[in-house]
Amino acid sequence: MFVPGLIERKRDGGALSAGEWGELVAAFHAGQVPDYQMAALLMAVFLRGMTREETAALLDAMVASGSRLDFGGLGRPVVDKHSTGGVGDKVSLVLAPLAAALGLAVPMMSGRGLGHTGGTLDKLESIPGFRTGLSLAETRAQVERIGVAMIGQTPEIAPVDKRLYAMRDVTATVECLPLIACSIMSKKLAEGLDGLVLDVKQGSGAFLTDAAKSLELAKTMIALGEDRGCRTVALLTAMDRPLGRACGNALETEEAIMALRGEGPEDLVEETVALAVEMVMLGRTGTRAHGPSGEDTPARRRTDAPTRRSSDAPRTAERAAVDRAGAEQEVHAALASGKAAEKFQALVEAQGGNPAVLEDPSVLPQANEVEVYSAPRSGTVLRVEPRTIGRAVVEMGGGRTKAEDAVDPTVGFVISARPGQAVRAGEPVASIFARDTAGIALGRKALDAAIAIGEGRAETLPLLAARVTAEGVEEP
Amino acid sequence: MFVPGLIERKRDGGALSAGEWGELVAAFHAGQVPDYQMAALLMAVFLRGMTREETAALLDAMVASGSRLDFGGLGRPVVDKHSTGGVGDKVSLVLAPLAAALGLAVPMMSGRGLGHTGGTLDKLESIPGFRTGLSLAETRAQVERIGVAMIGQTPEIAPVDKRLYAMRDVTATVECLPLIACSIMSKKLAEGLDGLVLDVKQGSGAFLTDAAKSLELAKTMIALGEDRGCRTVALLTAMDRPLGRACGNALETEEAIMALRGEGPEDLVEETVALAVEMVMLGRTGTRAHGPSGEDTPARRRTDAPTRRSSDAPRTAERAAVDRAGAEQEVHAALASGKAAEKFQALVEAQGGNPAVLEDPSVLPQANEVEVYSAPRSGTVLRVEPRTIGRAVVEMGGGRTKAEDAVDPTVGFVISARPGQAVRAGEPVASIFARDTAGIALGRKALDAAIAIGEGRAETLPLLAARVTAEGVEEP
Repeated sequence: MFVPGLIERKRDGGALSAGEWGELVAAFHAGQVPDYQMAALLMAVFLRGMTREETAALLDAMVASGSRLDFGGLGRPVVDKHSTGGVGDKVSLVLAPLAAALGLAVPMMSGRGLGHTGGTLDKLESIPGFRTGLSLAETRAQVERIGVAMIGQTPEIAPVDKRLYAMRDVTATVECLPLIACSIMSKKLAEGLDGLVLDVKQGSGAFLTDAAKSLELAKTMIALGEDRGCRTVALLTAMDRPLGRACGNALETEEAIMALRGEGPEDLVEETVALAVEMVMLGRTGTRAHGPSGEDTPARRRTDAPTRRSSDAPRTAERAAVDRAGAEQEVHAALASGKAAEKFQALVEAQGGNPAVLEDPSVLPQANEVEVYSAPRSGTVLRVEPRTIGRAVVEMGGGRTKAEDAVDPTVGFVISARPGQAVRAGEPVASIFARDTAGIALGRKALDAAIAIGEGRAETLPLLAARVTAEGVEEP
Repeated sequence: MFVPGLIERKRDGGALSAGEWGELVAAFHAGQVPDYQMAALLMAVFLRGMTREETAALLDAMVASGSRLDFGGLGRPVVDKHSTGGVGDKVSLVLAPLAAALGLAVPMMSGRGLGHTGGTLDKLESIPGFRTGLSLAETRAQVERIGVAMIGQTPEIAPVDKRLYAMRDVTATVECLPLIACSIMSKKLAEGLDGLVLDVKQGSGAFLTDAAKSLELAKTMIALGEDRGCRTVALLTAMDRPLGRACGNALETEEAIMALRGEGPEDLVEETVALAVEMVMLGRTGTRAHGPSGEDTPARRRTDAPTRRSSDAPRTAERAAVDRAGAEQEVHAALASGKAAEKFQALVEAQGGNPAVLEDPSVLPQANEVEVYSAPRSGTVLRVEPRTIGRAVVEMGGGRTKAEDAVDPTVGFVISARPGQAVRAGEPVASIFARDTAGIALGRKALDAAIAIGEGRAETLPLLAARVTAEGVEEP
């Protein structure tokens, strides 16, 4: 393999073969290809793009660089969710135990805060004692026992992704659809999933602010997943305002617990339920739980991809709608009955956290300073800008500007004002939680900038804009 | 300075400011910017290009990374030549002493063989004892004493160029006009030149085979040189066949000595004389030898760039033609009188080589095996493909495939057949010089492929295709 020749071909708009991608990534992983060659190649990929075949080959090579979870013989469908990240997005904390309460196995691997967006691991770690660094063996054992584990990317899972991502971050090659798709899907496919739901954010606070690009990313990931025997569905959701009211690690964990107890904000609950319904539907079409052969192994499942499983016979649209309505009822019931909350408690206990948090959220760390923020004028709330809020949380100490920064779980906002709502001057619309008065001042300034109040109508994106499957795009 | 932001701007087709290029290159030189960031930036530059201002800023930063030779007070114009490289191109060995014999100061810095092209240093080192690794102080002293030095790139001269070039070589970012121009000009400007003649090759054996690109490269380098107070002229010359007859280090040195003694092949002599005339003309327009102030320092000369020097008053075309004819006579006289040959002898002696080589080229190392190659058929020589010849010399041991390879000076070819010449089957048209019979076989195969004999006319490029100056392009 002559690496400069491969770089040259990509530079000139050509494609590398699947074998070449495999060999190249394996050699890079083995330390035989220096970082600067990979950096030049990534920039050429950024500017020249990749064919669908190349993207698939890169993905396979990234998965092959590490271990895969194997849930063979578990007897339950293995399903996960991935979000492209947003502000106030605490869905995972509600969704993972909820899906597990519905009989699915959820080995959820999450990340930390990145840029202006928060990270599930940071939120979970606001629970005293909660440990996210489980090994693959511990993860497998815990999923077998209670149906759910929430962990960080282990060194065994797609290790090449970690190196490539770190390099892309400092070489201006992050915002590249095929590379984003490979990075996300390499970790998810290594979880040994039967099904995956993607929550692809749109709007000013999303990682990709462009709606067309969000849709293209969703389609790319769906094709990659389906071709590898992992049923994949995406929901395109709104990130032109924060999701729910709380922004900041412990505050979001508290709001997630409220949602698990049936007291969550409407948008958070609606989005979580929609994603849970997709997970349940994917679980029903998986062979492991419902197929003719309970012995079906992951390997065998993958060889017959991308054709549909034989059990997934065509049904009428009516039948599908009935199924979907039933799934939605089940999801609501799991929240109302307290089963989802119980599963969360079991999860917290299993991973070393203080299980009292469910009944008494005051065991979460509390901010030193709290101040109410009032509407500076009367009018309609036109915007609550998520990027401004997310950046303020980071500045106040609740996120990282360098990987080694410690995160203060207590700081952040609870914003009750929603776009479209009429407010009067002096009416409380948010609370600021900070370490000290300087943090309160930072928070106040951020809210001044983020919350636009004026005349006219608020223009917002629909919370659930589209449902994307391998068959196409539909409005939900 | 936030390096990913600079890479991003270049990636998206924007330009970096002169200050940003300066800071970036200085930080890279100081080891504060990792190779992978520079590699990503270079690929973005390759695919997005650079403005003229950016190219100039990069060049200045590269020159500033090291020392500059200072010939202030020398009393002679300092002039050099650079060739973009070819097969059989031993011009420098004739030209440097020839120009010095005409009263110019020539601190010539050359390279080693690269790809299919030979290198002046490798040719010089075929002379027993010849030492090319002079320090800048030794170079300055030798130029002062005998008017000429022929050296390799020292660690003090444009050290960043060396690192960047090594990286470009393995990241498929070599063939990029602004980067090529900066690499060449950074070394030449650090020589403290008053004038520079560029020998830009065209045709299948050239580094840039495309004629339009060769011309663009010439124009770019001329603008860069002129803007920095170094008068720069380019000749576009033929490299669709080897230059002269000898290809291979010691064989070419021997041919250069023959040319210095007035016995060189016609094309080599014609091209060398044309380049020498340009050097003499540049020397005459330099202030140091002919200007009103002998005290003019390099710094002062540079501050009034790019305007013409006051002594360089407009002359009529007739006057210029008379000057040029006079210069050409002087050049021929220096060859005929033996003054150029004497200067070469002084050069060899000064740099530790065996000065007897001038009278007795058999002191050069001799090949173990020599075989005459005869025309396999009768007809017209249609082509002598330089790339095939150059690659064969490397394969036979006369060049490098890795930087650490030792070079065998003895191997190569002497090819008497010229395109357009009529030959008869069995007539000797070349000699092969090799280490062993395997080398002879390699050489024979290469000549079979390189020398095309058939019916019809040979299509060749004119030896001297164009003369390019800051004013424009003219046929010589």
